[in-house]
Amino acid sequence: MHKGLLFVVSGPSGAGKGTICKSLTERSNIDLSVSMTTRQPRPGEIDGVSYYFVPKEGFLENLENDGFLEHACVFGNYYGTPKAPVLESLEEGRDVVLEIDIQGAMQIRQSYPKAIFIFILPPSMAELRKRITRRGSETEAAINERMGKALKEVSYIDKYDYCVVNGELKEAVDRVIAIVKAEHSRVAEDVYDLIEKYKKEEL
Amino acid sequence: MHKGLLFVVSGPSGAGKGTICKSLTERSNIDLSVSMTTRQPRPGEIDGVSYYFVPKEGFLENLENDGFLEHACVFGNYYGTPKAPVLESLEEGRDVVLEIDIQGAMQIRQSYPKAIFIFILPPSMAELRKRITRRGSETEAAINERMGKALKEVSYIDKYDYCVVNGELKEAVDRVIAIVKAEHSRVAEDVYDLIEKYKKEEL
Repeated sequence: MHKGLLFVVSGPSGAGKGTICKSLTERSNIDLSVSMTTRQPRPGEIDGVSYYFVPKEGFLENLENDGFLEHACVFGNYYGTPKAPVLESLEEGRDVVLEIDIQGAMQIRQSYPKAIFIFILPPSMAELRKRITRRGSETEAAINERMGKALKEVSYIDKYDYCVVNGELKEAVDRVIAIVKAEHSRVAEDVYDLIEKYKKEEL
Repeated sequence: MHKGLLFVVSGPSGAGKGTICKSLTERSNIDLSVSMTTRQPRPGEIDGVSYYFVPKEGFLENLENDGFLEHACVFGNYYGTPKAPVLESLEEGRDVVLEIDIQGAMQIRQSYPKAIFIFILPPSMAELRKRITRRGSETEAAINERMGKALKEVSYIDKYDYCVVNGELKEAVDRVIAIVKAEHSRVAEDVYDLIEKYKKEEL
């Protein structure tokens, strides 16, 4: 049986990677990986859907057992992608998508080099600023800091296989779906099994 | 402006590369390259559509001027892909598809390495035999020879980027269309222009 493929979707905050991944899972059979965190659930967040909420000891134990594909500590809270459920889905032939930041993606390049890396770009920096501002949750200074960070992050694009400009959501998701479909037609190891099958056939 | 991409579709005779390319050009904006040949037109063939029919001297002159992306001589007749119209389309931002045999594709790897190589596979060797036999134009011995050749050709698959199994035509063309779309989202040289553009924007 074919193994599933792992797609890593990342890009600057505000580029729309979350919305794209959500729409992607709605429009295709791909599994969305759920992250694990030690931070407290916010109102409306559901354990096992938004995140797996775990105590710090549980997280660190998993970390010691090499149980994460990537992880980070932000403002004293741990976040990570548990390895087991992802590898299980792939083994069963299901594709998986991870929505993570650039630092996380760089870790996946080490822990699962066969992953396919998709960078989500905003149509322009001006549009990115608009989107971040529209959230209304941040000060001018915080927005400026985010913009500076986004510009630095864009330089990581050469570590990615694909880049998708998120102007119109449906068009961006169409592109990601095309990438998933195309990657399943890549000449890869399992092609050789096919050739062997052909050779064994009676001509 | 973005340059167009060159797609090379090849595979064993009978796998259906011609039908796939025809359907691809009907369903998308891709240009189909027209080959040049010194052989006589058959009834119904149109100059400039089926082939460019030229006298031998014209062909050889073009060959001397490095005017082909690939060429071959089969049973005393020359066949080749004229370079100029393909490069012109690409320069104007239009994608081009070439339908050629494996030997031709191997030449394109030299003359235009940026091309994207798609191998069309039959669903099985038994199905390939059925398709060749259905044409009704060949003897049992000729069919056996074709089958032997097809099996050898399949070994070239590792020189290709993608392989598409042509079981059901629409599904195969869907896959090729996804490949074309995905390749336009590849991180390539023009991504750096985009980053420069972002950097020049007022934050």
